[in-house]
Amino acid sequence: MTNATVFETISTQKCFGGMQGVYRHEANETGCAMRFAVFIPPQAKIGKVPALYYLAGLTCTEENFTVKAGAQRVAAELGIALIAPDTSPRGLGYPSESDAYDFGVGAGFYVDATEDPWRNGYRMYSYISEELPALINASFPVDAARVGIFGHSMGGHGALTIALRNPRRYRSVSAFAPIVSPMRCPWGEKALTFYLGGDRTAWRDYDATALIADRGWNGPAILVDQGTADPFLERELKPELLREACSAKGVALELRMQDGYDHSYFFISTFVEDHLRHHAQHL
Amino acid sequence: MTNATVFETISTQKCFGGMQGVYRHEANETGCAMRFAVFIPPQAKIGKVPALYYLAGLTCTEENFTVKAGAQRVAAELGIALIAPDTSPRGLGYPSESDAYDFGVGAGFYVDATEDPWRNGYRMYSYISEELPALINASFPVDAARVGIFGHSMGGHGALTIALRNPRRYRSVSAFAPIVSPMRCPWGEKALTFYLGGDRTAWRDYDATALIADRGWNGPAILVDQGTADPFLERELKPELLREACSAKGVALELRMQDGYDHSYFFISTFVEDHLRHHAQHL
Repeated sequence: MTNATVFETISTQKCFGGMQGVYRHEANETGCAMRFAVFIPPQAKIGKVPALYYLAGLTCTEENFTVKAGAQRVAAELGIALIAPDTSPRGLGYPSESDAYDFGVGAGFYVDATEDPWRNGYRMYSYISEELPALINASFPVDAARVGIFGHSMGGHGALTIALRNPRRYRSVSAFAPIVSPMRCPWGEKALTFYLGGDRTAWRDYDATALIADRGWNGPAILVDQGTADPFLERELKPELLREACSAKGVALELRMQDGYDHSYFFISTFVEDHLRHHAQHL
Repeated sequence: MTNATVFETISTQKCFGGMQGVYRHEANETGCAMRFAVFIPPQAKIGKVPALYYLAGLTCTEENFTVKAGAQRVAAELGIALIAPDTSPRGLGYPSESDAYDFGVGAGFYVDATEDPWRNGYRMYSYISEELPALINASFPVDAARVGIFGHSMGGHGALTIALRNPRRYRSVSAFAPIVSPMRCPWGEKALTFYLGGDRTAWRDYDATALIADRGWNGPAILVDQGTADPFLERELKPELLREACSAKGVALELRMQDGYDHSYFFISTFVEDHLRHHAQHL
């Protein structure tokens, strides 16, 4: 069962003239069944459409964005497919993998782990950047040359780092309340220590600010929305570090501090239309 | 603690420039703590706004509509407050009240029960039509003279029957996939038998088609959306019975059969904007 196009349909439901599906496949990278959600807009009836990947945050699955963000309305207008993967392997059964909300199950941090036991299945970087797109491109009416990526919190970190490392594959990137520098916050230091070990030089490939310093970004401006009432703002998210990194390298960043918004999907739903329109300009 | 304005704030979160809150109060009608959600649009900063009540369906709470329907975006544009109550008392502890998804907890059917033990707390008709509006009008910046009501499935039944029985209090009514005649479907017959007893004449006050036959409706057209792929369409919902009742009494009905849509919030989210704009014309 190594065929990249083998997957099972869990549900399909009509939504804004398009189709919202949830699917499951046996993933090679993670060594377990992975779910993902795909919204196909009505424009796909007459030709391939661009694809926009959304990476979710801690504790989330493929479902949160799909049922809470209200993005299908805008995607149906703009003719963009939305792909929402899960946030980690599930069911591998490693000791302690379900003990904390911020590590292990629901907290894959979009890295390829190198430490035991995580290195065997916690390979969300390769899963999101390689395996899942191969399946999507082979099985859904999307244009593999027109791809964007965005995400929230841990998933904002994932979107930024995956785009920065693969600038030719992602035309655009944006984020809601991203962890901009996991090397410099408690969530990130915990996860990277367990997944990658203590050598912090290996962490730079998974830190958006380090990647910008090391590689820059020649794509369109990076759009970031951050609520000022977000309880994780100062300790975990630190958007000023992204601003500094972009400024130092001349990378275009549109960082919008949104007054009074928190870390929830009420925040995301408020600004998701802006993000889809931003991506649509480049897809 | 019989003061109608006493309630507790569970959460408030900024959303589309307005505020989404979740609250709890000790309700007299139900004899237990009841939760409700209120979205206040930004226009309330400069004056009272109309109120639109949304009644949810079987198994739901105040949360489903609030997180899944995407209605706040449109309510913030139009300047309408959204009130989403729970669907039944909770925690009364009556035997068998949690045994079935379609009766008891999560399934109050918006009636005032007359049978034991339900008559002591399953008084969702009075709770929704009297007690909750009194609290809302006293505590939130809404205009008690400009009120509409809508709902989904069991809540569509609730919205229709409550509006039809109180035409001077509700300026407009609409529904998604409503149970239009609980006297003539399995869900309704079960619930009305247990809540109201075997005398079917007492059921007419809780059946939209019977209420239209008995009282008519002089308000604006009743807007109803119904998906053609709804698995409950033929057995439980039967929109043709509403069409017949309205036709016989000359009541204006806009019944829209929506091709390929099911019974979910993907269906509701697709058409919720139309419903809010419909209500806004009359509020």
